Amino acid sequence: MIAGIIGATGYAGAELVRLLSGHPKIEKLVLSSVSFEGEKFEDIYPNFLGRVSASLLKAEDVIAASDVVFSALPHAVGEPFAAACMERKIHFIDLSADFRFDDDEAVYSAWYGKTYQYPELHKKSVYGLVELNRRKIKELAAKGSVIIGNPGCYPTGASLGAFPALAKGLFGGGTIIVDSASGTSGGGREPSRSFHYSECADSVAPYKVASHRHSPEIARNMAAMAAGFPSPQVIFTPHLAPMSRGILSTIYIPLSQKWRVTPGGANMPPSKEIEAKTEEIRALYADFYKDEPFVRVLPAGLAAATNRVRQSNYCDISVNVDLNGSTLIAVTAIDNMVKGAAGQAVQNMNILFGFDEKTGLEAIPALF
Amino acid sequence: MIAGIIGATGYAGAELVRLLSGHPKIEKLVLSSVSFEGEKFEDIYPNFLGRVSASLLKAEDVIAASDVVFSALPHAVGEPFAAACMERKIHFIDLSADFRFDDDEAVYSAWYGKTYQYPELHKKSVYGLVELNRRKIKELAAKGSVIIGNPGCYPTGASLGAFPALAKGLFGGGTIIVDSASGTSGGGREPSRSFHYSECADSVAPYKVASHRHSPEIARNMAAMAAGFPSPQVIFTPHLAPMSRGILSTIYIPLSQKWRVTPGGANMPPSKEIEAKTEEIRALYADFYKDEPFVRVLPAGLAAATNRVRQSNYCDISVNVDLNGSTLIAVTAIDNMVKGAAGQAVQNMNILFGFDEKTGLEAIPALF
Amino acid sequence: MIAGIIGATGYAGAELVRLLSGHPKIEKLVLSSVSFEGEKFEDIYPNFLGRVSASLLKAEDVIAASDVVFSALPHAVGEPFAAACMERKIHFIDLSADFRFDDDEAVYSAWYGKTYQYPELHKKSVYGLVELNRRKIKELAAKGSVIIGNPGCYPTGASLGAFPALAKGLFGGGTIIVDSASGTSGGGREPSRSFHYSECADSVAPYKVASHRHSPEIARNMAAMAAGFPSPQVIFTPHLAPMSRGILSTIYIPLSQKWRVTPGGANMPPSKEIEAKTEEIRALYADFYKDEPFVRVLPAGLAAATNRVRQSNYCDISVNVDLNGSTLIAVTAIDNMVKGAAGQAVQNMNILFGFDEKTGLEAIPALF
Amino acid sequence: MIAGIIGATGYAGAELVRLLSGHPKIEKLVLSSVSFEGEKFEDIYPNFLGRVSASLLKAEDVIAASDVVFSALPHAVGEPFAAACMERKIHFIDLSADFRFDDDEAVYSAWYGKTYQYPELHKKSVYGLVELNRRKIKELAAKGSVIIGNPGCYPTGASLGAFPALAKGLFGGGTIIVDSASGTSGGGREPSRSFHYSECADSVAPYKVASHRHSPEIARNMAAMAAGFPSPQVIFTPHLAPMSRGILSTIYIPLSQKWRVTPGGANMPPSKEIEAKTEEIRALYADFYKDEPFVRVLPAGLAAATNRVRQSNYCDISVNVDLNGSTLIAVTAIDNMVKGAAGQAVQNMNILFGFDEKTGLEAIPALF
Repeated sequence: MIAGIIGATGYAGAELVRLLSGHPKIEKLVLSSVSFEGEKFEDIYPNFLGRVSASLLKAEDVIAASDVVFSALPHAVGEPFAAACMERKIHFIDLSADFRFDDDEAVYSAWYGKTYQYPELHKKSVYGLVELNRRKIKELAAKGSVIIGNPGCYPTGASLGAFPALAKGLFGGGTIIVDSASGTSGGGREPSRSFHYSECADSVAPYKVASHRHSPEIARNMAAMAAGFPSPQVIFTPHLAPMSRGILSTIYIPLSQKWRVTPGGANMPPSKEIEAKTEEIRALYADFYKDEPFVRVLPAGLAAATNRVRQSNYCDISVNVDLNGSTLIAVTAIDNMVKGAAGQAVQNMNILFGFDEKTGLEAIPALF
Repeated sequence: MIAGIIGATGYAGAELVRLLSGHPKIEKLVLSSVSFEGEKFEDIYPNFLGRVSASLLKAEDVIAASDVVFSALPHAVGEPFAAACMERKIHFIDLSADFRFDDDEAVYSAWYGKTYQYPELHKKSVYGLVELNRRKIKELAAKGSVIIGNPGCYPTGASLGAFPALAKGLFGGGTIIVDSASGTSGGGREPSRSFHYSECADSVAPYKVASHRHSPEIARNMAAMAAGFPSPQVIFTPHLAPMSRGILSTIYIPLSQKWRVTPGGANMPPSKEIEAKTEEIRALYADFYKDEPFVRVLPAGLAAATNRVRQSNYCDISVNVDLNGSTLIAVTAIDNMVKGAAGQAVQNMNILFGFDEKTGLEAIPALF
Repeated sequence: MIAGIIGATGYAGAELVRLLSGHPKIEKLVLSSVSFEGEKFEDIYPNFLGRVSASLLKAEDVIAASDVVFSALPHAVGEPFAAACMERKIHFIDLSADFRFDDDEAVYSAWYGKTYQYPELHKKSVYGLVELNRRKIKELAAKGSVIIGNPGCYPTGASLGAFPALAKGLFGGGTIIVDSASGTSGGGREPSRSFHYSECADSVAPYKVASHRHSPEIARNMAAMAAGFPSPQVIFTPHLAPMSRGILSTIYIPLSQKWRVTPGGANMPPSKEIEAKTEEIRALYADFYKDEPFVRVLPAGLAAATNRVRQSNYCDISVNVDLNGSTLIAVTAIDNMVKGAAGQAVQNMNILFGFDEKTGLEAIPALF
Repeated sequence: MIAGIIGATGYAGAELVRLLSGHPKIEKLVLSSVSFEGEKFEDIYPNFLGRVSASLLKAEDVIAASDVVFSALPHAVGEPFAAACMERKIHFIDLSADFRFDDDEAVYSAWYGKTYQYPELHKKSVYGLVELNRRKIKELAAKGSVIIGNPGCYPTGASLGAFPALAKGLFGGGTIIVDSASGTSGGGREPSRSFHYSECADSVAPYKVASHRHSPEIARNMAAMAAGFPSPQVIFTPHLAPMSRGILSTIYIPLSQKWRVTPGGANMPPSKEIEAKTEEIRALYADFYKDEPFVRVLPAGLAAATNRVRQSNYCDISVNVDLNGSTLIAVTAIDNMVKGAAGQAVQNMNILFGFDEKTGLEAIPALF
């Protein structure tokens, strides 16, 4: 099978090249790049030297030559390519935000400043958060070619950390706070002051506080999973941490009366009840994800850490109940470039084609 | 004037040596160390080569030779030295937790597993968070020798970020969440797996979730400042980030009805009202701290970052109102070894002796 | 086929587990650990959670159950296990230094402070630097079970950078200087001050100057390749750099008269002749390694960098002729844990069993 | 006294602002910037918030208002300002390369691609490597206003490591190799791929091999110090290491017959003779620098490390004799922004005005 990647020379594109080069079902890759058309991929990324020598083509030529197309283009430019793929009746997996909001054009436009060029496409596309929409993705694939809106990196880790609490009624209503730290690769390949080594090394800082475009995507996902239970207001704060890869999300979920528990006392250490409730919730999370190949609910005493999922498609989750017995603290760790982008896109491809979901995604995390 | 430092070879002690070596009022330093008694300080820390050649003495000898004593010992071992200083009628500034809880022995014992050896000392000591207790510190100093319980690193950044909201009634009751990331120097000088380069570099992870000993100190400080207004329940989550220095704290403060503001709409970008309210709150914070020499409320558009306070005694603060108009997001950045430990201790010394509070603490942050 | 790993919980052992878990010819791994006997591997390294749950056995039991045994034990303790494997007629691949010096016990003893327990084993073992001894390894394997002395990390990068110059007579005699920088994983899993984040981050320093145990191994390898040409004196200086993985070696090789070239003039920029000679040497290096699956001689203008080989078995090499036209500067980059340890061991296993040498080692370097 | 800084918003300029802000003889700073004229310095570098609020002027206005002028402009644009300062009879301290080659225009032009606009200025300027030219600087200052060509960062560390060996005849002729690793701040403030966090973190690589513009400066300095003894050919290789600050230089100096010593034997550990000779050379280095306020020759057993000089004006030096007894290995560590740039410039200013050389440069290195 031949896979095409449009916008292959950005970081997400290059990560797709790396993962798909090791995918047993992919015999060939065809790549495009506007910035580097005509050059060889290995000359742009010499770490691929001797491994991916393909010349970079035009997007149109990639689409014409492929059995499936991944788009790693910036936001708001990919719709025509999606349309072309639908015409050719091949699946289109879009890593941009263009197909993440289904047909809710109002929210998309408010945050991305564009209207839909092909509104009808958005009625047929599906948001590719596998743990939320696996069945829907399979149903659409059974009917023909599909457009996947591959989730944003932050929404992936944030949503997976809250889903069990939302689906099982642990969340008692009100505000869920998502406090996340991301590595620099999320900022992409273009040099800028924010990612200039001398000014981001050895430092942590928030950015786009109360104004990041992933906020509505996170809130929408949580509402979708909370069906039948209250939907949360969501507060999301992204931070930049001095690491190349990984997103850690610490998620604060107010517990419903039924799930609250007696604290150790004002300003006192955690009570036995809190420890017991924590274990009960941990078991519930483990059960909720028991059939998910890439979600690992960590044993008691172990906290999620980005280096334990590095370069893998895993999302690790640890849970705690706060000292006051009123809030669930769920922590998730993902590799922003794999589960947060390219790996999840490959997982979607595996579902669309009926491959084992783990195919080509079996890398064990490299601790260092 | 001669300053003594007990436990000078730990990181906090070494930072005190570095800062006090440049303090114009200190003519001489006398240092003690249990682990390295008899050795020269510069042989333990060769970065001090040719600058601090003093031999390490016994704690008793340091006390006998000093006009003021700083203790950078572990928790629960310093009380006898505090007593000895009171006997000698010299000030004792303790960087451990032993004198942070005034005479609330119950909370201290519950978290630190020790009872007070000299209960009466705790009736006369003062918690040294200058921005909270400056007047009290001065009043005590006017009466004689003082024991200062120098604040913990996390509580310093967390408290300063919430104080104006608590004192001015912005906080509407309920839970304040403090999500913090610390550099590795907070873990001290002893090697361990948690701080082994290969396993903490390029990674972010939480630790002691819902069980960190700084939680009660933060809650106590916030309650003290909220006098007349509701006291918050506090949730505190510390994280380890791959940097040597700095603590960034992102603080979520539910706003009272009076301070809430109309959002842009469900999942919509921030409204003009939110931007206006953010500016109003920023001005309120700036006014609250206008006479504080080491608190900088950042201009609109600038977020607190640990590298902009590196190796300085500053606490930078930025404020935002969340998308839903219901919560204040205050972010503080401090250098955990300076404002979070040694620098704040020197600031306390300056107050005790009536020096200009900035004396010896004028270093401009080194961005890199 | 079943592979056994003795000393599986050190970093080299864990890297073997990671690589062999993805090796298509290995059906099962059996692991031993003295420190963690009876525990599950995934509990020691939670990044393997759900992937490697095997309990850690005794070394004897690993040997009894395996078709090939890798030893990642410290130096000077593995010989009895090698003897046991020879008795069982299975290959033994030793990552320690015990079998790196063939039967030159004098040099081994002088540097490692031990004598050989089983001298006869050292007459039958082979030094596993594939690019030097591939034929010898195959010949031995044809005769029966083999003991491989897997090369040290520094000697691998240093030797590969000098081999073409030594074999083709470019080296003119005298001293070859190898100046290397290593990541922290080379220091292993045990925490110590040298690898304490706060004291090795953001800093570069040499260690064991003029006294590192890899010096004689490097000199021996260069002499072996120089057969017929003068053997170099070798000066080797290792440095610790703030990175988790990788070794960069900058190698200074005095050129023979025949290869020297006219400089641009005293203190002047490089002449055209130097650029031409550089290209000629680059071509010679490329030809020398044209059949090596894991050595990449970089195109003109590209310098070796550790992040372009990260987590791969590649050794990248770039070459230049210095301004004075008298010295070849060859730079090599390897991943110290892969080509410098576990990957090279797997490459040796592939040769011993007649598998394609690349089997299980096809990972494309992750630039970030 | 009023100090002016032209080009204040680059990294070297900003470091000058940081150091001069704490200099007791400087009452006021006047700053210029082409890129940010009219803006406030603290708005460009918010770490200076509340400390340096001066607006950025035109270079001409800075010169008109200053008693001494520092230029942190790029190469080949500063001569007119030097001429203007000479006219005003005030000292001009240039951090660019324009005045580093005295009147050797040929070498300067070959490497920097420009000819001198004001040749006569170069007859009166002096190269500001204090440890080489202190007397000459003082003599010129006694006669009137002086132009200082402040040394390059690499040449500073490289020269100081070789000077005693060159001056005392330890060097036996031939080639001296300087292998250096620099932090990213040496690359300046402008973002670029080379300094993009995701592509330079966790990696070491050389750059400008056999073609760096600091090579002729290093060779010239060494020849100047070797007066009466043979001058070396110099090979210089710079590397980029993942740290913000610091330059470590490992310098290989072939010993003269008189200084060579018996090795332990081919490939054998160092002999007692080597250890004794190392100590003899260490003592010679210590004596050579005994009156230098900023050069620290480290005690036996301690190797130079960049984190032990961080943010200080020190140059630390450690020495060893290689295993073969034929080569001196000197290692130097400096902070590239302080001793390698701004600190050395302030040291020059102190000499020009007859201040104690240490004035404003007494910061103790911050280990972390």
